Amino acid sequence: MSLTSAIKGVIPISPTPFHADGRVDMDSMAKLTDHFAACGVDGITILGQLGEAPKLEFSEARAIVELVAKRFKAPIVVGVSAPGFAAMRSLAREAMELGASGVMIGPPNTLRTDDQIVGYYRQAAEAIGPDVPFVLQDYPLTFSVVMTPNVIRRIVTENASCVVLKHEDWPGLDKITALRGFEADGAMRHIAILTGNGGLFLDFEMERGADGANTGYAFPEMLVDVVKLSAAGRRDDAHDLFDAHLPYLRYEQQQGPLGLAVRKYVYMRRGLIACDAQRKPGATLNAAAKGEVEYLISRIARADRRAVLKAA
Amino acid sequence: MSLTSAIKGVIPISPTPFHADGRVDMDSMAKLTDHFAACGVDGITILGQLGEAPKLEFSEARAIVELVAKRFKAPIVVGVSAPGFAAMRSLAREAMELGASGVMIGPPNTLRTDDQIVGYYRQAAEAIGPDVPFVLQDYPLTFSVVMTPNVIRRIVTENASCVVLKHEDWPGLDKITALRGFEADGAMRHIAILTGNGGLFLDFEMERGADGANTGYAFPEMLVDVVKLSAAGRRDDAHDLFDAHLPYLRYEQQQGPLGLAVRKYVYMRRGLIACDAQRKPGATLNAAAKGEVEYLISRIARADRRAVLKAA
Amino acid sequence: MSLTSAIKGVIPISPTPFHADGRVDMDSMAKLTDHFAACGVDGITILGQLGEAPKLEFSEARAIVELVAKRFKAPIVVGVSAPGFAAMRSLAREAMELGASGVMIGPPNTLRTDDQIVGYYRQAAEAIGPDVPFVLQDYPLTFSVVMTPNVIRRIVTENASCVVLKHEDWPGLDKITALRGFEADGAMRHIAILTGNGGLFLDFEMERGADGANTGYAFPEMLVDVVKLSAAGRRDDAHDLFDAHLPYLRYEQQQGPLGLAVRKYVYMRRGLIACDAQRKPGATLNAAAKGEVEYLISRIARADRRAVLKAA
Amino acid sequence: MSLTSAIKGVIPISPTPFHADGRVDMDSMAKLTDHFAACGVDGITILGQLGEAPKLEFSEARAIVELVAKRFKAPIVVGVSAPGFAAMRSLAREAMELGASGVMIGPPNTLRTDDQIVGYYRQAAEAIGPDVPFVLQDYPLTFSVVMTPNVIRRIVTENASCVVLKHEDWPGLDKITALRGFEADGAMRHIAILTGNGGLFLDFEMERGADGANTGYAFPEMLVDVVKLSAAGRRDDAHDLFDAHLPYLRYEQQQGPLGLAVRKYVYMRRGLIACDAQRKPGATLNAAAKGEVEYLISRIARADRRAVLKAA
Repeated sequence: MSLTSAIKGVIPISPTPFHADGRVDMDSMAKLTDHFAACGVDGITILGQLGEAPKLEFSEARAIVELVAKRFKAPIVVGVSAPGFAAMRSLAREAMELGASGVMIGPPNTLRTDDQIVGYYRQAAEAIGPDVPFVLQDYPLTFSVVMTPNVIRRIVTENASCVVLKHEDWPGLDKITALRGFEADGAMRHIAILTGNGGLFLDFEMERGADGANTGYAFPEMLVDVVKLSAAGRRDDAHDLFDAHLPYLRYEQQQGPLGLAVRKYVYMRRGLIACDAQRKPGATLNAAAKGEVEYLISRIARADRRAVLKAA
Repeated sequence: MSLTSAIKGVIPISPTPFHADGRVDMDSMAKLTDHFAACGVDGITILGQLGEAPKLEFSEARAIVELVAKRFKAPIVVGVSAPGFAAMRSLAREAMELGASGVMIGPPNTLRTDDQIVGYYRQAAEAIGPDVPFVLQDYPLTFSVVMTPNVIRRIVTENASCVVLKHEDWPGLDKITALRGFEADGAMRHIAILTGNGGLFLDFEMERGADGANTGYAFPEMLVDVVKLSAAGRRDDAHDLFDAHLPYLRYEQQQGPLGLAVRKYVYMRRGLIACDAQRKPGATLNAAAKGEVEYLISRIARADRRAVLKAA
Repeated sequence: MSLTSAIKGVIPISPTPFHADGRVDMDSMAKLTDHFAACGVDGITILGQLGEAPKLEFSEARAIVELVAKRFKAPIVVGVSAPGFAAMRSLAREAMELGASGVMIGPPNTLRTDDQIVGYYRQAAEAIGPDVPFVLQDYPLTFSVVMTPNVIRRIVTENASCVVLKHEDWPGLDKITALRGFEADGAMRHIAILTGNGGLFLDFEMERGADGANTGYAFPEMLVDVVKLSAAGRRDDAHDLFDAHLPYLRYEQQQGPLGLAVRKYVYMRRGLIACDAQRKPGATLNAAAKGEVEYLISRIARADRRAVLKAA
Repeated sequence: MSLTSAIKGVIPISPTPFHADGRVDMDSMAKLTDHFAACGVDGITILGQLGEAPKLEFSEARAIVELVAKRFKAPIVVGVSAPGFAAMRSLAREAMELGASGVMIGPPNTLRTDDQIVGYYRQAAEAIGPDVPFVLQDYPLTFSVVMTPNVIRRIVTENASCVVLKHEDWPGLDKITALRGFEADGAMRHIAILTGNGGLFLDFEMERGADGANTGYAFPEMLVDVVKLSAAGRRDDAHDLFDAHLPYLRYEQQQGPLGLAVRKYVYMRRGLIACDAQRKPGATLNAAAKGEVEYLISRIARADRRAVLKAA
């Protein structure tokens, strides 16, 4: 099952659950994977930034891919961003051996010119091999690398194995419009556009031509529904559901380890992972933040019963 | 009327209205100023980044201060961030002469170490003179300068004329808690904390100890009400109103010239400025974006009648 | 006398002399200007970064242009980099009125993509007016903006008023070769390439096709001679003179206010300015650094008698 | 043989030799190691940035450590900078097992505040274990992380295992003076200061209190002699030798892959490695650059016969 540009829907970015002592919690990883499947997602991304991938040893990363590949029956994308192409290639080849469908590659934050960015992806695609489909991650806020629509077009055109854009530029709606315009003009082949940024603009991204979401929101059920409602042309319904989640979603979408701490806390409160610890260095929520999160989720629950939490 | 650390409430950041040909539109500036006053705001900030200050000639900036000082009867804060202290001093002294109550200073994006940041504000405070109260702007997303709570404490402690923190770190809630903790411990004198970031976290910022908002949201009425409701302890009411605005607020809070284009479009649609043009270089909304904005505002209007717009 | 792409030779970047109390020292400015003329330079650049331009008030900048224009009979280039186009336009128009031959524009350090850079220069050229020739400053180390040869070609091609490249990329020799290759291929019209970086690679830059130097080395006499020797094909002689200066030149070419402190100290020791103070915020040499500079210059003096200093 | 703060002298940074097809060239690695020993160096650093470490697979890195540990009888420092502490720990523990004496850690380029930098080294020291001595790499030009002397003092004070500062700030002389001042005042325990930056300021760094050099200059013989001459108080002799090398040294010290290409070319021309290839992505010298390098080395050879190269 190879990742292709025909992919649509929701591919959640999975966190990596840890025990309080820092060991990977494989049971929770299994539970979480099964929950994603039960939500009706269309794939899963593991070992991204959100998944604390740089903190994992190779053997741990390998074991996670193996576990997910065994129980998840839709495309699995593995984050392989690395400071060097040797490590990227190793992990990519290993992941594909183990059953992954493709990989995700973000740019190093030292790239500046258009040619440097395009050149980097040419080398990365060559390093992992032309048989490994990849997701191009465009996330200027985190990577400090700015890709114009034209740069993305060049990368897509040069590399047949580039099949998905993980779009998380901000502002970014007009970038989707521009890329879909390239396709309409025959100036670029079709690629899937799945959006990130915690889902902060998912409502309008779908209307601009995105194929779905590829992000780590702690209620993937909402992402699945909004994508479906939007695809079905039920605009108001899509926005109503989205807006009910937005106050919490905005809170979750705080940058860095705090945002992840919020997500892990909610996954834990939902019973999907046993412990909200991040491997060091990480962040944890203080009492004030926990209270804020509980309050926000109780407010979602007024409109979306799936957000009802058991008493803590 | 001098700006002091006792300031509370809402100080909107005003845009600068231009005619389509790029001239400053003084009539709209007057209208907008009067609207702010009618909203019950507690001050006004002009000539910030949002006010396109770097695009103005000195004489234009001067004229705007003069106009606002004549008709606005609450503290006026003037943005004086500049690449050099000579220009900063000139504008600060001139603005105070004309009736301003204080100035706002953001850091140059080349500062890195704690000492560089503290040193910069020491020099800036000396340059403008100890009799000019200033607002310390802490906005890492735009300035790429990261100030820890301790750095802010050092700046506040060294400079008696530092009276307000314009807080727009992200994530930033725990920073408010930390600063209020310093005050509680007697480790730092009190300063006003007014929050920015388009208001994206205003609901919780108030709960964490902020004194109000200092940002450019195009419905300052909402900011005023949320600050009041929150100060009155009416938590649910504050969140209800805030949440009704959040889908649009989030859309407005896109970084850079696009976010400003959204704001100016809405101010124009509200009849508060004649034209939504930015002075070059700037951005304008395309048809898709205008439609999205109209849709979002129509949805606010279901809960907040002040957001009802006349047909375009 | 307009600046054109036919310019060749040495255009020193002049510091701005200040009195110890921070006032501009116009007598020293005059003396320094006359010294440049006596060295046989081919132009002069004033009010650049090295000239502490951002610390000057408009009226001070104006007075300096006026003074230099009165006594210097070769092209005068005025630095007009500014955070906004209004200030840039004001200073550029004023400077040309007063007798300048052209202006120099460096990019704001927030530019990232190729299109952003090209767009910025299009807007800047439009802002100052098509009748004002400008120098494109390419200095990634200071500005964090990386221009590929192709970006420079686009800027040159779009803007007829772009006549000189101040080249200070590092590494940068192949960029000169690439640009001269464009010219040879008919892919770009000719522009003058004058090199900066304190002269650190002047020896080879001339061999790669540069037209001269545009930098602030405190012995412009050496720059003049190396450019002439190189132009005359006297390679070994050019390198012998250059190498005699290099140990000190390398010391002078330390980044930021310290490098300027070295230069000003040497200009003062040469009797060309009365005081080595920088306007605040600035740096001064401590005793150790002064001793190092004196030692280095005494070593130049063994080969180049013009570097003999009077006893301090 | 553990690395301690008593280390003095020259610890060259070794490149990693590759065959033209990208395989590690272990024979050249052995030859180069033996050459360093024959030069009388006091240690060796392998797998740094200069050693293209991020391009190596773990097994390759391991093999290199093993080879060097077998034939080199002075302290071996292994670069272990990594995006995550898991990989850092793995390589550090493995390297020490194989006979390394310590490791070198550079900061990730996302660190900004003083506390972030100090916190990072606390976590890194904990990750590798308190029994692994480490070199703190302070290289703002490459890492974009600026450490004040006070930050270095905090790191040294918090982490007993921090024994060496690889100093390559620029300007950096006063930082050495400040750190030695801390030691003199009893404000900081002694650490070794070894300097980098290709040796560009080695002459004065020794005079300011450095203990030696830790850099990749292609004639380590010169570094050894300058350190000895300087330690012996033979100032003029030290500078004479240094200055003879400086024109080439400055050429070699171009940032990024080009600088490495120069070094590898010279090591190859000296017969110390078989091939000057970098593993992809890398740079190679064009004909013009090769000619420039040959010319510069022929000029060194007039004063230092060790720089005579065989005809190419």
